[in-house]
Amino acid sequence: MADPKTEEILAPLRAAVKEQGDIVRNLKAAGAPDLDVKKAVAELKLRKKVLEEKELSLAPAATMFDRAKMEDLLKRRFFIDQSFAIYGGITGQYDFGPMGCALKANLLHAWRSFFVLEEQMLEVDCSVLTPEPVLKASGHVDRFADLMVKDIGTGECFRLDHLIKAHLEKVALDKKTSEATKEECKDIVVKLDGMKKEEMSQILQKFNIRSPLTGNELTEPIEFNLMFGTQIGPSGLVKGFLRPETAQGIFVNFKRLLEFNQGRLPFAAAQIGNAFRNEISPRSGLIRVREFTMAEIEHFCDPSNKNHPKFDSVRTTPVLLYSACNQMDGKSASLTTIGEAVDSNLIANQTLGYFMARIQLFLIRIGVDEKKLRFRQHMSNEMAHYACDCWDAELLTSYGWIECVGCADRSAFDLTQHTKATGVRLAAEKKLAEPKIVNITEPVPNKAAIGKAFKKEAKGIMEVLSAMDPVTVGQLEEDLASKGEHTVSLNGADYTLTKDMVMVQTHQKTVHVEEIIPSVIEPSFGIGRIMYALFEHNFKMREGDEQRTFFSLPPVVAPLKCSVLPLSGNPEFQPFVKKLSQELTRCDVSHKVDDSSGSIGRRYARTDEIAIPFGITIDFDSLKAPNSATLRERDTMGQVRISLDELPDVVRNLSFGKTTWAEVEEKYPKFEQQETTKAA
Amino acid sequence: MADPKTEEILAPLRAAVKEQGDIVRNLKAAGAPDLDVKKAVAELKLRKKVLEEKELSLAPAATMFDRAKMEDLLKRRFFIDQSFAIYGGITGQYDFGPMGCALKANLLHAWRSFFVLEEQMLEVDCSVLTPEPVLKASGHVDRFADLMVKDIGTGECFRLDHLIKAHLEKVALDKKTSEATKEECKDIVVKLDGMKKEEMSQILQKFNIRSPLTGNELTEPIEFNLMFGTQIGPSGLVKGFLRPETAQGIFVNFKRLLEFNQGRLPFAAAQIGNAFRNEISPRSGLIRVREFTMAEIEHFCDPSNKNHPKFDSVRTTPVLLYSACNQMDGKSASLTTIGEAVDSNLIANQTLGYFMARIQLFLIRIGVDEKKLRFRQHMSNEMAHYACDCWDAELLTSYGWIECVGCADRSAFDLTQHTKATGVRLAAEKKLAEPKIVNITEPVPNKAAIGKAFKKEAKGIMEVLSAMDPVTVGQLEEDLASKGEHTVSLNGADYTLTKDMVMVQTHQKTVHVEEIIPSVIEPSFGIGRIMYALFEHNFKMREGDEQRTFFSLPPVVAPLKCSVLPLSGNPEFQPFVKKLSQELTRCDVSHKVDDSSGSIGRRYARTDEIAIPFGITIDFDSLKAPNSATLRERDTMGQVRISLDELPDVVRNLSFGKTTWAEVEEKYPKFEQQETTKAA
Repeated sequence: MADPKTEEILAPLRAAVKEQGDIVRNLKAAGAPDLDVKKAVAELKLRKKVLEEKELSLAPAATMFDRAKMEDLLKRRFFIDQSFAIYGGITGQYDFGPMGCALKANLLHAWRSFFVLEEQMLEVDCSVLTPEPVLKASGHVDRFADLMVKDIGTGECFRLDHLIKAHLEKVALDKKTSEATKEECKDIVVKLDGMKKEEMSQILQKFNIRSPLTGNELTEPIEFNLMFGTQIGPSGLVKGFLRPETAQGIFVNFKRLLEFNQGRLPFAAAQIGNAFRNEISPRSGLIRVREFTMAEIEHFCDPSNKNHPKFDSVRTTPVLLYSACNQMDGKSASLTTIGEAVDSNLIANQTLGYFMARIQLFLIRIGVDEKKLRFRQHMSNEMAHYACDCWDAELLTSYGWIECVGCADRSAFDLTQHTKATGVRLAAEKKLAEPKIVNITEPVPNKAAIGKAFKKEAKGIMEVLSAMDPVTVGQLEEDLASKGEHTVSLNGADYTLTKDMVMVQTHQKTVHVEEIIPSVIEPSFGIGRIMYALFEHNFKMREGDEQRTFFSLPPVVAPLKCSVLPLSGNPEFQPFVKKLSQELTRCDVSHKVDDSSGSIGRRYARTDEIAIPFGITIDFDSLKAPNSATLRERDTMGQVRISLDELPDVVRNLSFGKTTWAEVEEKYPKFEQQETTKAA
Repeated sequence: MADPKTEEILAPLRAAVKEQGDIVRNLKAAGAPDLDVKKAVAELKLRKKVLEEKELSLAPAATMFDRAKMEDLLKRRFFIDQSFAIYGGITGQYDFGPMGCALKANLLHAWRSFFVLEEQMLEVDCSVLTPEPVLKASGHVDRFADLMVKDIGTGECFRLDHLIKAHLEKVALDKKTSEATKEECKDIVVKLDGMKKEEMSQILQKFNIRSPLTGNELTEPIEFNLMFGTQIGPSGLVKGFLRPETAQGIFVNFKRLLEFNQGRLPFAAAQIGNAFRNEISPRSGLIRVREFTMAEIEHFCDPSNKNHPKFDSVRTTPVLLYSACNQMDGKSASLTTIGEAVDSNLIANQTLGYFMARIQLFLIRIGVDEKKLRFRQHMSNEMAHYACDCWDAELLTSYGWIECVGCADRSAFDLTQHTKATGVRLAAEKKLAEPKIVNITEPVPNKAAIGKAFKKEAKGIMEVLSAMDPVTVGQLEEDLASKGEHTVSLNGADYTLTKDMVMVQTHQKTVHVEEIIPSVIEPSFGIGRIMYALFEHNFKMREGDEQRTFFSLPPVVAPLKCSVLPLSGNPEFQPFVKKLSQELTRCDVSHKVDDSSGSIGRRYARTDEIAIPFGITIDFDSLKAPNSATLRERDTMGQVRISLDELPDVVRNLSFGKTTWAEVEEKYPKFEQQETTKAA
């Protein structure tokens, strides 16, 4: 990114972004009307996009990658393919075949070791079917929706903002359109992002927008919620949804988890599981799908202290940060360390920084190309409703930079919402540094007077008084002082309390703890997207033979660790193959025996395609004492000769990262047979 | 089960079952009407149930178990609890807390090692949301339903057969009811199982059955499908269901999997994943729930050869078999070996037998009590629509014997159904022992004549002829011979072909392969049920202290393998605790540091409750060279003293079953401090 020629080309684009970024800043600082800011931000985003696309097109690596070739390999060796293909298939749904499934299982196993076990997180496994009130409280029922319209004749659906945009852009390009109308069209397009249903409906009518496919009329705009709905139980009365994220399962279990952790903060809970989103038009392969696996962490901590005890262990981690500020200024991402970024408050707190460093370390360990990894900060206008700071780990693919891991500070949003909805206080107790004397102001009822006045309602009224919140107590005190009475509601009826029935008293109490609603730091991993990026980052061609492609996945996630190949169909090889296979199983090394009839070169090529990092060949020398075999490494195609006794443990150590190929090559004699690079 | 006194009590019950079993056999042999057989079978089932309940009540172990106490522990230490409890909860849905989740993850990891890796199965991970046509073909849309009625006033739902049964039993007990009506009621109850909607509807009217709760009228019977329905995509036109089993995902991918296996049979595919069933009234805790995890294997093999290459390795495995025959005869399950059972054709084939032995081995390895495990064969009248033989691994719990693993021969049912529905042939090619010469009879068209007669339809008609199935070719030949013409349909129109346009010829062809539709042997594991049985089988109380309960789960599945406990809050212990924790992480040993303030005895009791098998205590001797600590085993409460250097590897080997506690006790000096059995 620091190539001077490239920078020369990019300079005017960067300047254009900065110019617009400054305009946005000034508008905000001046407290300009919302719509003006919105319009300026839309223009800013557009300029950012032009800059980013240019940047990507100038990067030398980007031209090397052949997506069609990779997708062919993924399909042909059944890493992944469309679900229900023999029934015509459903867009946005994929099945993982044996190799995709093994990669996924290994990736999740690595994730669990790296996060759950190493950090002693509390992993949970919660229900997918979620009753409506839970998702009402979390905001998903109301906000997790897109507007759409349907063709009255065919029922075809269109996302409303996309439809209006396409139509108005066409109108604006039409020579017959007046300048005033053109301006109006452009203005609407910029403002679309924040428009309400009614405004859009009026635009539909004003411009007489019809179905672009049939010319038919369209329905009124419909709010299309992206959650899959269903009925729980037979009555049809309990509405439920497939969860759109796994996080809510953790929040509703907060009290149990806090108790499990003996009431102490901070602690982190984690969950791996499927989530579902009924996308209107899924696309981009694995990147935007209707069902997907997530791995989410919710780290609960004291909102007034977001330091992390292990922060020093990651302080020097270098990270490529694309801050909101840099984005507004048209600058590119810049390299710094997690420690510097937290010290300078670019990253809001240590815990957020700690997780970002850990996320990066994990991604690199499982095979992400570190040169294609950056953290992008959300700009304030794109932050989710629950977040107060958010950095996405983005991976560069042929689709551009895609968000693969979100790392958000959700503050106390979710716990507060569920507390409001259920009345169950999702809070923790924090021990005060020293005991505090506080004034408690509360209603003191005259039981006898209330009992006499309200008979069997008296008990309920007493309960209303004892549960009264501080604001209402203030009101009560004021009412009694000014009017001599105060009215309370109970089961829909009003009851007037007079001075002789209740008074308000203030007394002092020594407290040792205070109740706090924890803040939540949430790293959220999209497993399918990470897998897709892994495929792209590890798709390689052998030098000089473009037909010979392979995946250079590291052993820790490779679907299988080892292949066992008898040189030929000679029956003398069989007992050795069988024994070796048993030994590898005993060592927990997943492997594949390929005794099909192809040449060794051809079978190596086949195992390379499915990313098997190590290959053992039983040949005629294996039959003689001391029995030995060749061991080959996929990426270098180097081979060594090792005795059969030692082999299983060597492969085990290589597979689990306890030793490196370089160490093995140093220790054992090189096997010098030239491997043919052409698939024989 | 061989206790003479018990057998004396059971003898008359056994005789009663046998008597009825013989009646069923005779009716079947005599070809008696279906309803008579059904009635006799219902009576047989009733007698079997009485026998089984008596058997269980006489078993000595059953009285020892306190379910309420166990459920309290499961809830208190958050192994598992009801989902969305703060929102009032939903029946039939559970969340796994940290300990339940870790147990489940370990169990699935063990399953994957034992089945997928050891047998080199092809594991897949398929979509949950399934479009309707797939489940139409599998039979689930039509057959996976119960009839129910609703209270017209309240909407309350009742399962129709349960409702009628309860009502008629009440009528039959009423003294005012005539003998004839009583007989009619009993007769209906017996026949209910196979009744159609219309028949049940007539019974509702005839007996004027109303809501038992409100006395309100009821709706007409409604077919309630147990699948959760939803809409895929925004149009509302693509109906889908949450899968009720994972198996279908494998069947629809059969061609890809066969290809991955280079076209060869046999091979097995496997899948771990969630499935969903909208039970009308979920109950029995984890046993009947609305969402659950399954682990399924589909082993595809040649229908004419169901031998298994590894069968000899399991031949001598002892198994407790409860055959259909024994069930009809009122006998109890009997002990035999897998080899004998297959040799005598009690188990239909080697592959079924091989899997049964492997299932048993697996269940015992993860902690199932082998004395509470049996295989029960389905009787012919209870077999699922797709199965031709089925043995359930049943585990004895306080709910009785529950089916935890089904092991069915699904024959070619599913592949045939999907082939019919899609036209995609889900078949394999089998190499013939020697080439076969077959007669091929096919239509030979006269292109010129057809072209002249039908112009632009000619091409389509030629295609109809070349795709003609053998039966139609026979018809064509017959028609041409007898009438001199034959009519074919194309796009809804009829075309008459005459003798000069087409003739039928037979010629010989040498074929080397034949097409077969593989048979499927399916072991299907209900993970939640297995976990529940594991909890029951491993719930223990310390001798002499009923309050001190624990789970004796084997290390391979225990949620955490090890605890690390500093003897007290002395800060000198901290560095040792920290270093040990890091070392254990490096060795992949999941563990928990408990530095809370309780006594060691109390903290041991806490770790016992969550099934941690090994505990390390850092005490004052740990501070002196050579630094050492105590290692304690949960079940025996035995302790040894081991140097800190060796400790991580010893715990690792214990955790992964590479060494036993007895071996450790032999090698290291016993630590003789008496552990208080009372929780201090």
